[in-house]
Amino acid sequence: MDLIQKIRVIEDFPKKGISFKDITTLLKDKEAYHYTIDTMVDICRKIGADVVVGPEARGFVLGAPVAYGLNTGFVLVRKPGKLPAETVSYEYDLEYGTDALEIHRDAIQPGQKVVIVDDLLATGGTALAVTRLVEKLGGIVAGILFAMELSYLNGRKTLEGYEVHSLIQYDK
Amino acid sequence: MDLIQKIRVIEDFPKKGISFKDITTLLKDKEAYHYTIDTMVDICRKIGADVVVGPEARGFVLGAPVAYGLNTGFVLVRKPGKLPAETVSYEYDLEYGTDALEIHRDAIQPGQKVVIVDDLLATGGTALAVTRLVEKLGGIVAGILFAMELSYLNGRKTLEGYEVHSLIQYDK
Repeated sequence: MDLIQKIRVIEDFPKKGISFKDITTLLKDKEAYHYTIDTMVDICRKIGADVVVGPEARGFVLGAPVAYGLNTGFVLVRKPGKLPAETVSYEYDLEYGTDALEIHRDAIQPGQKVVIVDDLLATGGTALAVTRLVEKLGGIVAGILFAMELSYLNGRKTLEGYEVHSLIQYDK
Repeated sequence: MDLIQKIRVIEDFPKKGISFKDITTLLKDKEAYHYTIDTMVDICRKIGADVVVGPEARGFVLGAPVAYGLNTGFVLVRKPGKLPAETVSYEYDLEYGTDALEIHRDAIQPGQKVVIVDDLLATGGTALAVTRLVEKLGGIVAGILFAMELSYLNGRKTLEGYEVHSLIQYDK
């Protein structure tokens, strides 16, 4: 299936000059949505994942069904202050300022093989932060899966050393 | 399966006096997570849903896998400014102030049977807002499913006239 045709491109969102890749048109299309999740589940099976981790909020939309299809649990990575129990936090740099992500301290067992799922690989900053959280808990990052990849931003360089997969690539 | 045992209760989160029901312990438990989604899928099959709608962000974690299991598309309801294309908005009252939710104008076709999925039924304000959005687009709200329900807050009264299901009930 040619998934790229299911993505709606919206110019100048969220700000001028950005060509936003809108995945909601894929998600509402049952064939495209199922093909996307099934393909991710197949990749996870080959990798051999024990658990799936997804960052807020679009990572939930893809990561949760992948965990369901794979028959594993699903672990949430969230913005600060959203997770109620004891957390581990990781702060990372943005273009302007910093951001942080959190995971529950008991979310992953040491030695568990983890697959990280998110919608979009851009610069790779968010995914790298998630790898750090998983590794702080003793988890092994077995792979990182994205629906879409903006190849020209070189996110794979940021994630060097990890097994990275994406279903749709944009070269410009 | 006794799902209530899989929920972690955290006192005084996010503020003093609130006994927070933490669903992350259920989500990371593969048997409990699958049982939850399978049960919701079964209910949706009986209802006869064409599409699943989930509000940000925990509604994504349950709604997306239900849509996958049911073999339908998934539609996102988000906070203002998050959806990139043309939206319909609904503003609703909170204890202090107001909040708003949005849906893409082309997310639902008139006459489609919609099931709304979220993690928690408290006062029912969020779910009612989602019903309004679905109906603005001409969709038919066939049912509203929650993992957990705080029965003592009478959310079912707010959602009167709709078919409401929950898997776990808290009476106090």
